Order: sequence, then structure tokens, then C-alpha cells
Amino acid sequence: MRVSKLLGERFKNAPSDCLIDSHKLMVRGGYMKYMANGIYSLFMPTKRITRKIENIIREEMDKIDGQEVMFPVVMPASLWEKSGRYSSIGSEMARFKDRNNNNMVLGMTHEEAAVHLAKDTAQSYANYPFMIYQIQTKFRDEPRARGGLIRVREFTMKDAYSFHTSQADLEEYYERCFKAYERIFRRAGAKNVVSVKSDSGMMGGSISHEFMLLADIGEDTLAICSECDYRANMEAADCIVENAPDEAIPLEKIHTPNAKTIDDLEKFFNADAKHSCKAVMYQRNSDDKYIVAFVRGDLEVNETKLRNYIGDDIHPAQDIVTEECGIVPGFTGPLNIDERVIVVYDKSLSGIESLVCGANEVDYHYKGLNIKRDLGDVTFTDIAKTFEGAVCPVCGKHSITIKRGIEVGNIFQLGTKYTKAMDMTYLDNKGEAQYPIMGCYGIGVGRLAASVCEESHDDYGPVWPISIAPWQVEICNLRAKDENVSNICENLYNELTNMGVEVLYDDRAVRPGFMFADADLFGIPVRVVISPKTIDRNCCEVSFRDKSFKSDIPLENSAAEIKKLVDKLLAEYNI
Amino acid sequence: MRVSKLLGERFKNAPSDCLIDSHKLMVRGGYMKYMANGIYSLFMPTKRITRKIENIIREEMDKIDGQEVMFPVVMPASLWEKSGRYSSIGSEMARFKDRNNNNMVLGMTHEEAAVHLAKDTAQSYANYPFMIYQIQTKFRDEPRARGGLIRVREFTMKDAYSFHTSQADLEEYYERCFKAYERIFRRAGAKNVVSVKSDSGMMGGSISHEFMLLADIGEDTLAICSECDYRANMEAADCIVENAPDEAIPLEKIHTPNAKTIDDLEKFFNADAKHSCKAVMYQRNSDDKYIVAFVRGDLEVNETKLRNYIGDDIHPAQDIVTEECGIVPGFTGPLNIDERVIVVYDKSLSGIESLVCGANEVDYHYKGLNIKRDLGDVTFTDIAKTFEGAVCPVCGKHSITIKRGIEVGNIFQLGTKYTKAMDMTYLDNKGEAQYPIMGCYGIGVGRLAASVCEESHDDYGPVWPISIAPWQVEICNLRAKDENVSNICENLYNELTNMGVEVLYDDRAVRPGFMFADADLFGIPVRVVISPKTIDRNCCEVSFRDKSFKSDIPLENSAAEIKKLVDKLLAEYNI
Repeated sequence: MRVSKLLGERFKNAPSDCLIDSHKLMVRGGYMKYMANGIYSLFMPTKRITRKIENIIREEMDKIDGQEVMFPVVMPASLWEKSGRYSSIGSEMARFKDRNNNNMVLGMTHEEAAVHLAKDTAQSYANYPFMIYQIQTKFRDEPRARGGLIRVREFTMKDAYSFHTSQADLEEYYERCFKAYERIFRRAGAKNVVSVKSDSGMMGGSISHEFMLLADIGEDTLAICSECDYRANMEAADCIVENAPDEAIPLEKIHTPNAKTIDDLEKFFNADAKHSCKAVMYQRNSDDKYIVAFVRGDLEVNETKLRNYIGDDIHPAQDIVTEECGIVPGFTGPLNIDERVIVVYDKSLSGIESLVCGANEVDYHYKGLNIKRDLGDVTFTDIAKTFEGAVCPVCGKHSITIKRGIEVGNIFQLGTKYTKAMDMTYLDNKGEAQYPIMGCYGIGVGRLAASVCEESHDDYGPVWPISIAPWQVEICNLRAKDENVSNICENLYNELTNMGVEVLYDDRAVRPGFMFADADLFGIPVRVVISPKTIDRNCCEVSFRDKSFKSDIPLENSAAEIKKLVDKLLAEYNI
Repeated sequence: MRVSKLLGERFKNAPSDCLIDSHKLMVRGGYMKYMANGIYSLFMPTKRITRKIENIIREEMDKIDGQEVMFPVVMPASLWEKSGRYSSIGSEMARFKDRNNNNMVLGMTHEEAAVHLAKDTAQSYANYPFMIYQIQTKFRDEPRARGGLIRVREFTMKDAYSFHTSQADLEEYYERCFKAYERIFRRAGAKNVVSVKSDSGMMGGSISHEFMLLADIGEDTLAICSECDYRANMEAADCIVENAPDEAIPLEKIHTPNAKTIDDLEKFFNADAKHSCKAVMYQRNSDDKYIVAFVRGDLEVNETKLRNYIGDDIHPAQDIVTEECGIVPGFTGPLNIDERVIVVYDKSLSGIESLVCGANEVDYHYKGLNIKRDLGDVTFTDIAKTFEGAVCPVCGKHSITIKRGIEVGNIFQLGTKYTKAMDMTYLDNKGEAQYPIMGCYGIGVGRLAASVCEESHDDYGPVWPISIAPWQVEICNLRAKDENVSNICENLYNELTNMGVEVLYDDRAVRPGFMFADADLFGIPVRVVISPKTIDRNCCEVSFRDKSFKSDIPLENSAAEIKKLVDKLLAEYNI
């Protein structure tokens, strides 16, 4: 490809709405164009990158016996009504009426479609297991599209669905897919990808993992043990604390005017927050019933864990607590709390002999609350957010660290949620009807491209791994108006292309500084500079975009030498 | 791939709603599954076929300097308002409101998106020409989805857009694309594809061609000269007649009770329909004004040509003509016709000296109408449908034949319609702003697959050309329970796969008749049958799906021999 004909503009300053580096560089480098909130057109370099990623994914899915299929983007609402998700999913799902007034939806995931396709055709246990996947455009009406291709509304996704006759078989396949995912990310040049235990959210099912590319700009918070392999999304991370030994004291009601927050109490009682019992108010969505979550004063509530415990959607109620509900904001405590309230105790409160807590009366707190003595046997549940230095649930050390990550893939054990809802069965070896057990497995293609850019760039542009780089080699002709220089460049361009090397040729008559700035934005792994000076030395100047290599290479045989370098770089991703 | 694990069911009887062979066979063969009207999921074999077609298209588009890009499926209505098509396109375009109440559309074509992407980045004449294309899912809310993948609502399409600084440059590129299309169809194994001149319809622009696969079930009617290269879609075909010499006679008003049709008149006057002047009534959509089209009695009106002449949308008015409009149904003629009516004369009436026509009075006709003598100089326009035996506008012989075709591709010269509407300009070599001239080029991927099936099948299944066949070779193991047979099959399967041959392996313990019926539905070009009998002969039985080859091949070295056959078949499409 000649840069003179390549559509897309490169420029120096990123628009002010680009907040993260990959977004800035991909806009500045002519990779993408904004059309609407979370909706972009992609220029040729990005399309080449995403196609390479898609091919890596396809190869790895085929290796684990995946069958590539194609589901519709537009689906009838009736299909989603069967699974119950037509009503349970909110405005993230785009809906419209077709010309015959049928309700239609745009696919944001395809569990229903996968069951629809497999149903009736996999009727015997002998047909199992199998996995079907597609690589396709999806639309999810994200409320917070941001970060360029990191979080968009329209995106290309690989989504895979496996079907099994036993949980053990699902688990075995899940493990194979897990390893395929590790290979995919390595081959795509994503270096710092870790898998974390995750919450299954709206997908249903129990066990699930997310693959996270560690990056400060990541939207997800991760709990990672520095001493062992434990890794979890904050949403799903166990919170284990070790409470320092303390002693029981008598319960005493204290007048605490205006002391409403944990900070206030720390000052008033001159005691560590770890010895107070914090109350956080929620409401259950289905009936607005109040929920009070009690956690140790220094901790926060993990709403996902609380939601899973309640078994229903919840929302914070802190600012809308009314007198009628029996809760006294700022002075809420477990003792004598209104009976209509659902009370949840976090595990962090277990084993503390003496706590400060609200007295459910304006301007009063208790000190010396001993839950066991004063409230009896209550159930302690893990509903707190873990934190830097918390106890690792696997190795038991105080070794939890908190990191940020971008979710680049996820895998779920779905169970029979969808096959039951849509009545898909097979006959087992005794001739009895059974529901197949499902797994599902997603990777966002564009997000992975942007995440690699986020991980692998410098101030001047992306540093694309050769496995997904839009081109492998860029030739910079520093004197396009000089016939001799141009002839040598053209010859090398043709020779390399004929050898199967992907070459971007900058054939423009522009200043070297301008050309190099563009080359940095193209981020091509191998750069070849040819100018009257290098020709005087009978050489071309070859360097790597990541600065790990720079050398003159004699013009004779330069194509073969460059090809060798390309092959060597490619070999690193050949796993 | 093993048939035992391949998702998809094959069965004997097609559902009654499958009216054409390709649809029947592709449903019966486990290629596709109905989800909603015009919306299908595709099983693995179809996905493999369409991916091969996409790769052929991609290679040919890249050869003519195409840059593969990606436009959004979901676009803001505002973009389509700029071109005027948000209102000019009707209910074919799916529309919805996003969560922020913005009007959005689903792309059915991407001229607006192409201009949006190219605008601002191709500002100098030196950037031209260029072509951008994508291969992507589109949704068009077809009122008449039919014929399986032939006419669907959701489909995968390659759409390309070229930009030029002169009409001459566009025409040169149009010709290159024309040839690329010819190569694409040949390489995809579509044998009887012809290009025809077409009407540009809603795309704007002037010159356009459709690529038609000739097939009796085709929805389009084509006028094809049997003596020269002239070919046109019926909608765009010139209609040329040669009127036999006749003589003028005096004009005479005749009482013709109940003679309302051309048939009635033929009997009443005992004269050929070629000597009567037929009136066909329309209304202009914008203001309901009546239009009367006069054509020679034996001809039909071509509504597309009439619409283009009127320059506005029209609809038939035959059944809704009221007395107030001044038209007398059944007795309408050019003489003394109501002044409020738009009158159009077809060329076929030119040069006839004596015509029978309505007298605009109930139960009366004229005979002896001589248009020139009785009406003066009227304008004759070509608004009639051409017909079998009409005069070819190129070679002048009476050699027009009428055929049916499936449109598998189209190319348009768009002119500046979109660049003007969306204000895209570049600076020419004098520094003056100019609007780029556009071309656009489409191919429906799924429709092409189904069309090839329609053209290339027998009673038992598709006969896929090897260039797009889901697999190249099928191995039929006729005794899966016999360890020796299975070992030989497995070895051949592995050997061929390692050689890069794509193999479908039927490893099921089913009866030979059942297996062969399935094999016919798979339509794989090369079939290898292995059974205890063939092993006794120390052979496998190799045959082609199209029956052009059948031979025993010794088991030793069978993989290499089969590979040779595959390569030989592939070479036919290697153009």
C-alpha cells in the first residue's frame, strides 16, 4: 500500500475528548472516525489489525473443535421473550418494529440464537459435545461509551457457545477454551493479560472468568494476590480480614450529637474505624423494601456480592430514606432496628468483641456492642469490597493487591438456564430427555486491538506487535523526487511484496520529520529508510519500531535480509 | 470435520414454503435455519461457503486498489438527513430511537458513511482516485423476502465506493471494477452471469450495470440480444418496434358499445392490436395528478421508464379513475382528452398512419386516427416494455430475447449526488474546490452462494464448485464399526488434512444409502468411499459430485492422488 493513496489523515493534536492514550493515538493516526456516540468507522489500518485478530481467534476456536456459524444481528423479540431477557434487559438492548409491526431486537449476545440453531438438530447424546461460534457486529446501547474502541456501542465480537451432556464435560471444555484464550491473547501480542474469577451478571450460570489486560485506565478493579495465583474481579473477590483481638466491655448508650459519619465517630470515641459497625442502606428493586448492610467501619459494601446474596436487583437508598421506614440515617445500628428492614452482616464484623454502632435514635450511638452477646447467633455473609493488604483466600497471606484492568474476554459456565427456558432437550443413553449444559465464551475484537495499543505505545504512536500490525514493514522514501532513490524504493517494495511481506510504502514527497512522525503513528514493526545518504553508503537503514534494533543493511540482498527479520519477529508469536 | 459432530440436520422433504430448488436443498441439507421472515442463521457449511466467496471478493477488490474499511451497521439519522434519503427511503429502512432518544437507522447501503469517512481526509486532488470497501451485515426490511438466501432482510454484502476527480477517471475505474466482477463470478463458479444495463433507481447517478445470473426463477426480466452484445434489465431496456407501412384514412367516430379492451377492439374492428392506441392510467404520487400513457395496443408500459420520464414516483390508477378527472375508462384516447391530464406518447405509436383509439366518450371510439394529421407534432418517448423479437437497439435486428435473472451484483456511476449533498470537496490543481465524482459497487454474498446452488445442483443436492465448496473432499466410511476400515479412513483423513486439503469425514455408523443421500446434500466435489469391499480390492473409490469422474484409486499413495485431483479442480478457478 502506498501512503499517498491511503485514506485517513494523521495529525499532531488529539481532540480534547480523547482521554486515554490509545484513543488519542488511534484518532491522531487515522485509524478511526467518529460518527456518533460509541459508533465509529474504521480506516484500512484498523480493519487490517482487526482481521488479523479475527484470524487468530478463528484458528484457535477451530483448534478446540469450534464450528463457525452465523447468527442474525436482527432477531425477533419473540426469541428473547422465551428466555425472559426481552424484559429483564433494559435500555442497553436496541429495539424496533419492522414494517409488519413485529418487535425486533439488535443482538448484543446470542445465547438465544445459539439454542435456536442447535435445538432440534442435536437430539442424541452422541451429537455432544459441540461448540458453535461466530465473529460478528453487535450493538449494545451503552450508557457510557468511552475510550475510543475500548467501550463502544457497536462492536465486533467473537461469541462462542458450547453444549454438553454433563457438568464434568463442560468443565473439561471450559478448561480447553481457557487455554485457547491464553494463546489468543499471547498471539495477538497482549502481554499483561490475566484471568480473574468474575461475577456472572446477567448471563446466568455460576463459574465464570474474565481475561483482563492490566492497565491503569481499565474500568475494572481487580484483586490480585502477590504471593499466589489468586485473582478475581473486585465484584467477585472474597474479602477476608483478620480482626485484631479485643475485649468485651459493657454495652452503653452514648449521646453523640451530630456524629453521623465513621469519621465523626472515630474522633468522638477516639477509636479506630475498625471498631465501628457501618450501616449502608439499599432498597430491593422489586418491592422497594429496605436493606441495611452492616460492615466494619473501614470497609465498603460490594454491591454485586450483596445483590447476589439478596437474589434480586438493589439500589442505594442512602439519600431517600424516609421516617416511615424506621431507619434513622446516621444513627442506624443492629440493636432494635425496625423489623421491616432486611439486615445483612458482613463477615468482617465477626469476632469483634466491642463495636461502636448507631442506636437507631437521633444523636445516639452505642459503644461496647458485642454481636454474639447482644444479638445472638447472626449470619455473617461476605458482602464487603476487598482492599490492598487484605487476606488472600487461597494462600492466607496479607497479600491482596488492587489493580485496574480492561476486560478483553470472558468465559461463562451457563448451566441449563437457556436450554431449559427454550426447551431444548436431547435423549441420553437411557433414552431419557435431558437439558444440555451450556458454556459461552466472548472476545471483543476492536477492544482487544485498542487494548494492545494502550499497552504497547510510546508518546509518538502505537507499537504494534507484528502478529496484528496493519503492515509488517514500512519503507520510507526520504527523497521521492529523486528518481534513483524512488527506483530503489519501488524495487524493494515489489520484491518484498512478492516474497509475501506486507509493506506500507511512504512514497510522498514530504519532509523527513513529517514522514517519521507519520511512521510513528503507523506503528509498523520494521522500518526501512532509504535516502541519497544511505544509498551513498550502499545501504538502507533498518530499525524496529520498539527501538530494539537498528542497523544498516546492504542494498544488495536487502529484501531477503528484511524478510528474515520479519520472520524472526513473527516466530515469537508462533505458539 | 467429522459428520458425527457437525451441527445441522439433513432430511428428505423440504418444508412446503420452499419454492425454489436452492432454498429446498439448502434447508434440507442443514445449511440454514429460519428464525424470522427473511432472517436466517447459517450453519457451518454455509459459513465456510460465504467466507470463501468473501475471500475471492476481497482478493479482487484489493487487486483494483480497494482499501478494506468498516462502516457502522447502526448510523445516526442525521447522516441520512444530509443526503435526503432519511425521508426519501420508505419502510425498507429500519429505524429506532437509542436510549438518548436519537433517531438511528440500520444501514442498507453506505454511500453516506463512505462520504463521511472520506470527507476531510481526501482534500487534495493528489489523494484521488481511491476506493474503499467493506464486507458487512446489512438489514433491508424487504416486503417480499423469498427464495431462502436469494432475497432476505438481513444479508452480508460487499459494498465499495470509489472517488474520482473526473468523469473519465470514474469511467476507467468503473471498467476495472466491471472486469473484477467478471473474475469474481467466474472464480466463485457462477457460470451464466451476464452484465446488463440497468436503471439506477434510488441510488442516483446515470450509468449502471447489474450482473445477472440467468435462471428461470430469477425475479428480474432481461432483454438480451441473440445477435450482438446488447443486454439490459427490462426496466432499462429500450423498446424499438418497426411499424408495418399502412395508409391514412379519414378519421371517423364509431359507436362501440361495451368494447373496452384491446381484445374487444380487435374483434370489433377486425384489426390487429398493432393498429390500436392503448391508454394506461397512472397518478403522480406527489399531487395525484393523472397521467395517461399511450402505447401501441400490443405493448405494455414500462413503469420504470415512465417514472424516469415523469421525474417523480407514480402509481397505477386504472381502478380508481373517477368521473371528475375527465377520463373515460375504456374509451380514453388522445383526441380531446381532458386538459388536466398529463399525456405521454410511446415511440411505438410514431409512424402509424391509422389507429383505433378511444373517443373520450362512453361507448365511442375513433378509427383512422393519424397522430400527425389530427394532433400535430407530439413528443414520442420510449416508455414501453420491450418484448421477444423486438428490434435490438445496437445491431438493429429483430433479435431481442427475454430471459429471467437473479441480480448477484451491481455497479453504479453515482456522479456527485452524495458529495454535493454532504458538501465533500477537494482542491483541484488550480486550488479550486470541486466535488468528487463517485462510483459504487455491490455484491450480495449469501445471494451469490444461493444463486450458485440454484445454477449448480441436481435432484439430490447442490453440486458446489470446488472454489467455494464447504469442503473439498468427503470421505465416506461405509463400515464405521469395522476397525480396519475406520483406521484406513482415519489415516486418509489425517494425511489429507496435513496436506492442506479440506476434508469432511463421515464417520457415522449408518447405512450406505443414508450416508450417500447426506453426501449428495453436502455437495462436496470429490467423494472417497472406503468399505471392506474396496479394501479387498486394495482401493478406495473416488468420484466427483458432478459425475464427470469415477475411478478406483490404490490405497497406497491415495492421499497424494486425491490431492492431485483437488489441485486440478482448483486450477480451473485459478484465473
